[in-house]
Amino acid sequence: MLSEFDLIKHYFDRPVPGRATLGIGDDCALLTPAPGMQTAISSDMLVEGRHFFAGEEAQRLGHKSLAVNLSDLAAMGARPVAFTLALALPAADRAWLEGFSRGLFALADAHGCELIGGDTTKGPLTICITVFGEVAPGRALRRSAAVAGDDVWVSGTLGDARLALAGYRQEPALAAPLNAADLAAAGSRMHTPTPRVALGVLLAERGLAHAAIDISDGLVGDLGHILARSGVGATLDADALPAGPVLAAQPLALRRAFTAAGGDDYEICFTAPAASRAAIAAAATECSTPVTRIGRIDGAPGLRWTDAAGAPLALELASFDHFK
Amino acid sequence: MLSEFDLIKHYFDRPVPGRATLGIGDDCALLTPAPGMQTAISSDMLVEGRHFFAGEEAQRLGHKSLAVNLSDLAAMGARPVAFTLALALPAADRAWLEGFSRGLFALADAHGCELIGGDTTKGPLTICITVFGEVAPGRALRRSAAVAGDDVWVSGTLGDARLALAGYRQEPALAAPLNAADLAAAGSRMHTPTPRVALGVLLAERGLAHAAIDISDGLVGDLGHILARSGVGATLDADALPAGPVLAAQPLALRRAFTAAGGDDYEICFTAPAASRAAIAAAATECSTPVTRIGRIDGAPGLRWTDAAGAPLALELASFDHFK
Repeated sequence: MLSEFDLIKHYFDRPVPGRATLGIGDDCALLTPAPGMQTAISSDMLVEGRHFFAGEEAQRLGHKSLAVNLSDLAAMGARPVAFTLALALPAADRAWLEGFSRGLFALADAHGCELIGGDTTKGPLTICITVFGEVAPGRALRRSAAVAGDDVWVSGTLGDARLALAGYRQEPALAAPLNAADLAAAGSRMHTPTPRVALGVLLAERGLAHAAIDISDGLVGDLGHILARSGVGATLDADALPAGPVLAAQPLALRRAFTAAGGDDYEICFTAPAASRAAIAAAATECSTPVTRIGRIDGAPGLRWTDAAGAPLALELASFDHFK
Repeated sequence: MLSEFDLIKHYFDRPVPGRATLGIGDDCALLTPAPGMQTAISSDMLVEGRHFFAGEEAQRLGHKSLAVNLSDLAAMGARPVAFTLALALPAADRAWLEGFSRGLFALADAHGCELIGGDTTKGPLTICITVFGEVAPGRALRRSAAVAGDDVWVSGTLGDARLALAGYRQEPALAAPLNAADLAAAGSRMHTPTPRVALGVLLAERGLAHAAIDISDGLVGDLGHILARSGVGATLDADALPAGPVLAAQPLALRRAFTAAGGDDYEICFTAPAASRAAIAAAATECSTPVTRIGRIDGAPGLRWTDAAGAPLALELASFDHFK
């Protein structure tokens, strides 16, 4: 039987050269901040049966647990530095821990983000990661910084994660069940999202964007936070929203609904002055992250939709709320 | 019905002047580190039915959730700065949130520790706090720093939290059931522990102690981490262990067992050179935290016990392990 301390030592305590002066194995980790930089901090909790299916494969769960946190750093334009992991587990299952730590560390290493501490306990499977990044003062991309006249952009594609959920659940909204290949392709967006760290960092360091947010609850709801905090509104082209490759083959109404308010996308929505367009395109190419212009910020509050021809559209959409 | 965002705004989003440039309500919080200081970071996860009873009163749970994290900072000698809170709740219950946030913020305010971000979700009641403190380089009290010849000290008293647990469970080890007043007194040590922040900070800032750890799993196990990391052993006087006031009236064997390996104490165990004795006593008086010398660090590995007369004692004790 694996003890709590053996478990930490065996699966999570790795000597990694990094910013941490002291990592796992003391009361606290010690981090030496880079002089003059601000620390960006985000914390996300994932609960079995809520944020992921019971029995979810451990390796991709390890990936996703860190990915959703890195996505918050990306939306701030902060470079990842380190993270803590608190884990409640029903049992100390070696195969699960092996897979989970493999998925976790593969993504952490790809971003130079070091595990510096945490906690393990017995309990219903729950994963809480707190991530630390750094950003130069005044460079962070805040939700409150959108300005009337800004373009609204999104990275990557939207809606395939939501489509996969509909596929798994066999929701009646689907015209026909997804075939196995489509379900696997869309499912990969749900299970192993790609945090847009490099794009966020370029946008912030080059001063290209005003406001940004990561799309986790759906575009409408998340852009809504930018609009509320910035005291502005927006007009979006429903047909400009970049649909994931599987969703793109679905009927128009489903495409619109899932791109606009699907959730679990982990793309970045950001606003930027029109003067930044060429530089944004160049940054996107540089980090191999597609970006799409989907509308503009207005002075008048509220969110308005048009179709590709510019005609007004009435879309009734709402984002995900954990307590509704 | 309270939405996730209303919940955060109403109960947890308070404008507090502090180190945070940006707190709750963006993708990340932004913290500006004090120039030249290291950041101490600790994360603890509390699970209903495991770390606290189902139905535990919300206000004291709010206190305890932060207290166990502040205790980790105390054991490092770091000054509290800020924390994040991730919360899984079965439902958005206003009375519970009211009580929990009251208990949480009362302790946070007493330590100037600011809530800067976090996450709320639906799920089995689980609380994950990550706390940030600051400490000057080279001043942190590490587990690996004990030296043969050091005195071993503990703050406060031990064992009353464990006694309360025995009382609630009516464990057969108790000679007689605890009366209501005793159970309430011992229970307060379990429900509302006092993190020894001021003592830890004085020990670190004045360079009085070598190694330190907070006692959460029981003295034997936690001191054992200092011994293992420092490559040393210790000899302790079982009868010098300061018992809590309720436990002090119990039979000797129970007193020894619960002071040595009770758990949930949230006192600090630290080692220090004999030359620091007077300065430690002065620091303890200054911060109104009693301290007791309970033994010494030896070069030979292992933990040895004596009684008050110095005669060897064979105590068979083990600390708490979440997976055993």
